[in-house]
Amino acid sequence: MSDANLFPGARVILVETTHPGNIGAAARAMKNMGLTELVLVNPYKFPDEEAMYRSASAEDVVSSARVVATVDEAIADCQLVIGTSARERRIPWPMLTARECGEKVSAASEAQQTVGLLFGRESRGLKNEELQKCHFHVNIPTGEAYSSLNLAMAVQVICYEILQARLGGHHLPSDESGWDQVFADADAVEHFFGHLEETLVQVGFHDPENPRQLLTRLRRLFNRVRLDQMEVNMLRGFLSAINKLGSDHQS
Amino acid sequence: MSDANLFPGARVILVETTHPGNIGAAARAMKNMGLTELVLVNPYKFPDEEAMYRSASAEDVVSSARVVATVDEAIADCQLVIGTSARERRIPWPMLTARECGEKVSAASEAQQTVGLLFGRESRGLKNEELQKCHFHVNIPTGEAYSSLNLAMAVQVICYEILQARLGGHHLPSDESGWDQVFADADAVEHFFGHLEETLVQVGFHDPENPRQLLTRLRRLFNRVRLDQMEVNMLRGFLSAINKLGSDHQS
Repeated sequence: MSDANLFPGARVILVETTHPGNIGAAARAMKNMGLTELVLVNPYKFPDEEAMYRSASAEDVVSSARVVATVDEAIADCQLVIGTSARERRIPWPMLTARECGEKVSAASEAQQTVGLLFGRESRGLKNEELQKCHFHVNIPTGEAYSSLNLAMAVQVICYEILQARLGGHHLPSDESGWDQVFADADAVEHFFGHLEETLVQVGFHDPENPRQLLTRLRRLFNRVRLDQMEVNMLRGFLSAINKLGSDHQS
Repeated sequence: MSDANLFPGARVILVETTHPGNIGAAARAMKNMGLTELVLVNPYKFPDEEAMYRSASAEDVVSSARVVATVDEAIADCQLVIGTSARERRIPWPMLTARECGEKVSAASEAQQTVGLLFGRESRGLKNEELQKCHFHVNIPTGEAYSSLNLAMAVQVICYEILQARLGGHHLPSDESGWDQVFADADAVEHFFGHLEETLVQVGFHDPENPRQLLTRLRRLFNRVRLDQMEVNMLRGFLSAINKLGSDHQS
């Protein structure tokens, strides 16, 4: 297991893939999301240059892929088997959305279960007999006008959801933690607004006798942007410069 | 606006794309998720056969793509501009995860706003000056070992999240609504369990004096599977057949 493998025991199984490029693109999509175990059931053409090329920096995933002859071989030791499927099937099966699938696979891997994710042929998906080997079917919700995802794209979405489930509440550095400046406190902002108003009056843009909505709209603007301390300093420096110009002008 | 367009006003903008295949794959990814407005800023090679081929049934999205010379032209009438970005930037910007981006774009389109989603070059993404035209940057969380998504894959994930945000609580037909049989009620299941236990005793597999955990485990199994009425009927028919055999044997 390499460091790139965040989900040991979870394998992506591509069944009778026709285009080697899709194998490479799927490998890249997997590795981007922390999955590295790839099994190919009876691929049309493999190994192949196009698969290596499209994998970009996931060549290791492609070259360590296991090739087997049947779906049964691929899933033999799997404790959870999930197959991608279009929505409508004659016999309904327990269905997962891509998001639910991500949660289930992430949890199963964490519980040290072996998981097989079956992706079917480009032309016709998984056969009914293959789908009937699955505990769950997973469907990626799409628009109605065009519901057929490219194979590697489907792998991307499913693996993306697996990683998102793992990351859970761990968000990116956002305003709250990843900002490079301290946010200004209300007192500092209030002093800025006061300074701004004085300056607006000073330059004759704002008439306190006929205020219209000017100050309200400026307040909304600057509050929406959530000023940091450096920005307040900059703005006040700017206002001070205006003030100075105005007083020079008057004197 | 075609029926395929679920997000009027929301456009995908590909900036200086090198590989025409990525344009086609992005178009397919968009249409799968209900977006059809594509703008190409100074593409390296377009129109192109490979773009058409890779778009599959999204040729209409490719052929109606608008080609412009600059990012400014592409976003001129956009009320919300979001640019894809790697995590680390010298100057932090308001960041969205892909999921948050989906929610924002879906809501903005619903509010009839024009939205531009900027995707950068395969080699080096968006330039700093382009990123600084954005209200938000969006980052697709990845594993640490390999964080560089293929361009069209990034389009797929973002568009996927836009549609999921729109679908919101609207889940797929699942066990709750899409099953072809009525689920058995608790009473029917309880009668089944009674019948099962009698039969287990009858065939000598279960000793009520030394129950171990047999019944508990069987209950858990059948409750986990959530039996429908037809399945209960089938199982009870099976048990009855066993009962009959046993009584024939005794007599």
